[in-house]
Amino acid sequence: MIRVALDAMGGDNAPAAEVAGAALALAEFDADFSLVLVGRPDAIEAELAKHPEIDRGRLSLVTATDVIGMGEKPLHAVRKKPNSSLVVGLGLHRDGHADAFVSAGNTGAILAGSTILLGLHDGVDRATVASSFPAPDGFVLVLDSGANLDCTPKELVNFAYLGSIYMRDVIGRPSPKVGLLNVGEEDDKGHAIVREVHQALKQQPQLNYVGNIEGRDIVVPHPVHGHIDVVVCDGFVGNVVLKFYESMGRLVYGLLKRESPSLLTMPEMQPLLRFLDYSEYGGAPLLGVKGVPIICHGSSSPQAIKNAIRMAVESVRGELSAHIAAEFAQRAAQETA
Amino acid sequence: MIRVALDAMGGDNAPAAEVAGAALALAEFDADFSLVLVGRPDAIEAELAKHPEIDRGRLSLVTATDVIGMGEKPLHAVRKKPNSSLVVGLGLHRDGHADAFVSAGNTGAILAGSTILLGLHDGVDRATVASSFPAPDGFVLVLDSGANLDCTPKELVNFAYLGSIYMRDVIGRPSPKVGLLNVGEEDDKGHAIVREVHQALKQQPQLNYVGNIEGRDIVVPHPVHGHIDVVVCDGFVGNVVLKFYESMGRLVYGLLKRESPSLLTMPEMQPLLRFLDYSEYGGAPLLGVKGVPIICHGSSSPQAIKNAIRMAVESVRGELSAHIAAEFAQRAAQETA
Repeated sequence: MIRVALDAMGGDNAPAAEVAGAALALAEFDADFSLVLVGRPDAIEAELAKHPEIDRGRLSLVTATDVIGMGEKPLHAVRKKPNSSLVVGLGLHRDGHADAFVSAGNTGAILAGSTILLGLHDGVDRATVASSFPAPDGFVLVLDSGANLDCTPKELVNFAYLGSIYMRDVIGRPSPKVGLLNVGEEDDKGHAIVREVHQALKQQPQLNYVGNIEGRDIVVPHPVHGHIDVVVCDGFVGNVVLKFYESMGRLVYGLLKRESPSLLTMPEMQPLLRFLDYSEYGGAPLLGVKGVPIICHGSSSPQAIKNAIRMAVESVRGELSAHIAAEFAQRAAQETA
Repeated sequence: MIRVALDAMGGDNAPAAEVAGAALALAEFDADFSLVLVGRPDAIEAELAKHPEIDRGRLSLVTATDVIGMGEKPLHAVRKKPNSSLVVGLGLHRDGHADAFVSAGNTGAILAGSTILLGLHDGVDRATVASSFPAPDGFVLVLDSGANLDCTPKELVNFAYLGSIYMRDVIGRPSPKVGLLNVGEEDDKGHAIVREVHQALKQQPQLNYVGNIEGRDIVVPHPVHGHIDVVVCDGFVGNVVLKFYESMGRLVYGLLKRESPSLLTMPEMQPLLRFLDYSEYGGAPLLGVKGVPIICHGSSSPQAIKNAIRMAVESVRGELSAHIAAEFAQRAAQETA
């Protein structure tokens, strides 16, 4: 039985969205997991009362009286609020009472708390937030997507490994294609750091590195390499493109509403609108820490929380954390050999 | 009469697309401009023969026997090919035989050639390519979009001025709103350079600076500030987001083709498809040099060439280059005062 700790107080719509998402997950997915809701029992119970369908045998509560707000300084908040749902939930995960942790709370605090409480795998200098970009042939993992604004070449190479292991062991892509986000494909394109990373990635036979890619190749299949599985970039670029992509649903909806409102309600239109609606999508795994923390948008819908729970369950099932540890240990051994 | 020099040999489809674009421009726009096509006369004449509608009184040819290829090293090519259409065309502009220059050739070579041949305005350290992102309420100018991958704070502040003057004097937005592209809105967001630029932009009363904006605010109206006119970023981020946005048309088209092909031919669907089709859009002004060079995509359609010619004419009409010179001189005077 896989146990997922869910920060019930984290998001903008907590705990309603979290509890509703938990109910959806328990109803829809294979019954090989249980949930631990972390937060204020009275607030959680009030929401649970609205979901009598929930199998309480697969859901338990752990009390956390405090909440870390969205505007709080991450490191400071994690240190000063040991009784927050975020710190208590991560503590459950660290102490083996949960196999994963899902939160729609303060992203910086989840990052700081995970790094401090769970620790980094040997060989990893910084954890990275990996975002799933919907693409026509399944999604593309873009990392980093906002946790690390300035990255060293070594960190960016590590992101390529972390993303590849995730796509292989959790998503089931046998040999994930890795692209380095750049302004052109040639060897001499880009600033000094990406040029160095490009050369370094070419020297990694364990990776399926296809080379530099451009912005147009992230979600539309590359003319030569086809669908890219893992896109490596620093967190500044990744965050800007992620948020830009998230706005495309509203752009398309707004344009249709103005120009051709009759289309909006046509059944044929719904697949595209759903595809572009990021509230449909789940969380982002925080890769590189010992464990499985999943970060959700603050504004996550129940649907998004449900999908983040699935991501957590599948990461545990795929033994993601153990595989990352093993692969980084192997690389370290090869480098010293 | 405004005279626009057009590099007839620059693009991937030269000179067919250039000549067809010239024909469209001459037919559609006010007759206050003439065109100078620069390139190999036989190749150009062969294309002109396909457009008997062209008023040859408003179109002349200047011979350039050489062409700079897309893969050539920009600076080297500009120096070694004085008889290329690009260098000859820029020379016409520098020597006062043309008021603007339009090319779909090697972007780096247009940038290098313009900087060398036309020179930079006093106070400008580097020229910047400003791209127009289509948005529901008119377009947004994003700069830099690929010419300057690493930017100093001073250069980024200059981009804010250059973009504001363009949007005011060429596009007619009285007090253009400037946003700094960042990963969050708060003062402490972003890496060291954007934090410094944010503080510097707040100290510029001549600019209508609204603050940090995020990727989601580029083309979808900002919840507080509404439509942003000028988005400032370094050329790495700008280029990635530009090309990502350009791929959205193909993404939407591909998804509709697969999921709901019947929609593609519906008249109600065309406004959205046209909006997302970047081949409809024109060139990008190179701002900061003395003159009006307009850079087009290598794959420009006749439609795009036509729109770039309009951009050139309107930039000359708006006295863009003189206004940039005056405004930078005024800033320099204030700083020494």
